[in-house]
Amino acid sequence: METVVIALGGNALTINGKLADARTQLRIIDNTADEIVDIISQGYKVVMTHGNGPQVGGIAVQNEASANVVPAMPFDVIGAMSQGMLGYHMAQGLQRAGRIKGSKVSPVALMTQVVVDPDDPKFKNPTKPIGSFFTEEEAKKLEKEKGYTMKEDAGRGWRRVVASPMPKRIVELDAIKDLMEAGHTVIAVGGGGVPVFVDKDGDYDGIAAVIDKDLASERLAQDLDADVFMMLTAVEKCCINFNKPDQKAIDRMTPDEARGYIADNQFAAGSMLPKVEAAIRFVEARPGRRCIITTPEKAVDALAGKAGTLIEM
Amino acid sequence: METVVIALGGNALTINGKLADARTQLRIIDNTADEIVDIISQGYKVVMTHGNGPQVGGIAVQNEASANVVPAMPFDVIGAMSQGMLGYHMAQGLQRAGRIKGSKVSPVALMTQVVVDPDDPKFKNPTKPIGSFFTEEEAKKLEKEKGYTMKEDAGRGWRRVVASPMPKRIVELDAIKDLMEAGHTVIAVGGGGVPVFVDKDGDYDGIAAVIDKDLASERLAQDLDADVFMMLTAVEKCCINFNKPDQKAIDRMTPDEARGYIADNQFAAGSMLPKVEAAIRFVEARPGRRCIITTPEKAVDALAGKAGTLIEM
Repeated sequence: METVVIALGGNALTINGKLADARTQLRIIDNTADEIVDIISQGYKVVMTHGNGPQVGGIAVQNEASANVVPAMPFDVIGAMSQGMLGYHMAQGLQRAGRIKGSKVSPVALMTQVVVDPDDPKFKNPTKPIGSFFTEEEAKKLEKEKGYTMKEDAGRGWRRVVASPMPKRIVELDAIKDLMEAGHTVIAVGGGGVPVFVDKDGDYDGIAAVIDKDLASERLAQDLDADVFMMLTAVEKCCINFNKPDQKAIDRMTPDEARGYIADNQFAAGSMLPKVEAAIRFVEARPGRRCIITTPEKAVDALAGKAGTLIEM
Repeated sequence: METVVIALGGNALTINGKLADARTQLRIIDNTADEIVDIISQGYKVVMTHGNGPQVGGIAVQNEASANVVPAMPFDVIGAMSQGMLGYHMAQGLQRAGRIKGSKVSPVALMTQVVVDPDDPKFKNPTKPIGSFFTEEEAKKLEKEKGYTMKEDAGRGWRRVVASPMPKRIVELDAIKDLMEAGHTVIAVGGGGVPVFVDKDGDYDGIAAVIDKDLASERLAQDLDADVFMMLTAVEKCCINFNKPDQKAIDRMTPDEARGYIADNQFAAGSMLPKVEAAIRFVEARPGRRCIITTPEKAVDALAGKAGTLIEM
């Protein structure tokens, strides 16, 4: 029985990249859940992960808006809140799809911490904007009072930026394994995991960061020794000459071919590039592994080799 | 090896009953975590549950405050968010206590849904106030536009009230069992669980309600066939003639004695009464069971019979 780790983009859970209302969010998840349950029904052991960019952004705005009456939570706690919210809706979506298809599915969402290195060079230059827009004056005040790093965001105003460090270790890995072995469909590492570091005493402590969910999911796929790693995103296939007249979709590429495309600057930083890099790492770590990049709607077809981009040796 | 379900009050995670800032919330949890880890070290299998009253109240205020820019989430989703937040902090607290005491502890927080009956009579008369205070005019508008039930709260203004129906079934029970059997310290049924009902299609669907966390925890203790059920609250022992000159603490009572005290109106509704009722149900369901009511600080002593109120046959 093959193990598949499936990473779902945070944007794939929204409309136009913004936190949707609860009903809409659930209905969006339903479409993906249909595909996931079909994959489970085919006999794969599935572990789900998901992004949370738009969702933590929304929760951060909520926290800032009422900070005068309710203590605003730091970014790690907001990440944990988004795991609760999205894990709940994803579990309901999978339960519903299981009921419709007559499949026995037991989804369970786990609060997951992921350890990062506080000396990761990314902390020197935070780049991920989150939460509300502020005026320059407000931004300077937040930098001074709260130690935030604020940056001007494309003429739209000032926003807090946080770092996106490399995921080093998944704290709840054993629990994920045990649930998977017991036949549950685990939903874990939400939003790349709640970012923590190991402090001087040896304790986990939250840190303001956003861990890339594809990188964290690849870490999980390695640690579970998964056979297949799927990244579900906005495009059905990786393309070369993307958005140009001679755009060409890639059906299959080896890690070496992928490296050639990277050297040729074919994949956008912060978008397709980290996915392809994660794919290379996953596939090269053990013979016989496959990595697939496609849309949520094409997940079943892609696993059958009929859609998406396949990366294998 | 005895199984112990330990329910921690939501107020026990606050200062003065209000959502604390993150650092304070963590430090409050540390005190309880010390006791829990000692119990685990003694060889008990522990499952933790917790309340979330002050926390969902705070998150509801945050949602309302920014509803014009970020969709306000319904009450079930807010419950799931509070499970993420508190589950994360409780896990960190247990990990820290384990490190300090040199005990191997593997805490894992699970998003938990609990099924209620939409025909539960409690839905006819919602009583649990949550979130912000409004003027009468605003309250009438919310009743009309959102279908909320609003009530005047002790001269302080109008607040939304939701029902507190009986917990019928824990959706993620099998996952909790599997994790417990694998040696993890599960944190589940947070806030009494995310309240859901089974809709006409047979799917779980969120509902605006607050499930009493002691009742949900007792349901879990029954379903796990636990040997001990502990409720950690604000008083070290149940008392008769509470807050009167002849107040008398109860060291031990049988279910029949407890029923006598209840008939004598010794326990306050919405406070000690539901705890004692849960205790009677738990203890009477199987011989050899013990139920303990005490403070977080006295948990170890109470389990050893040296503190708290013991309810047993």
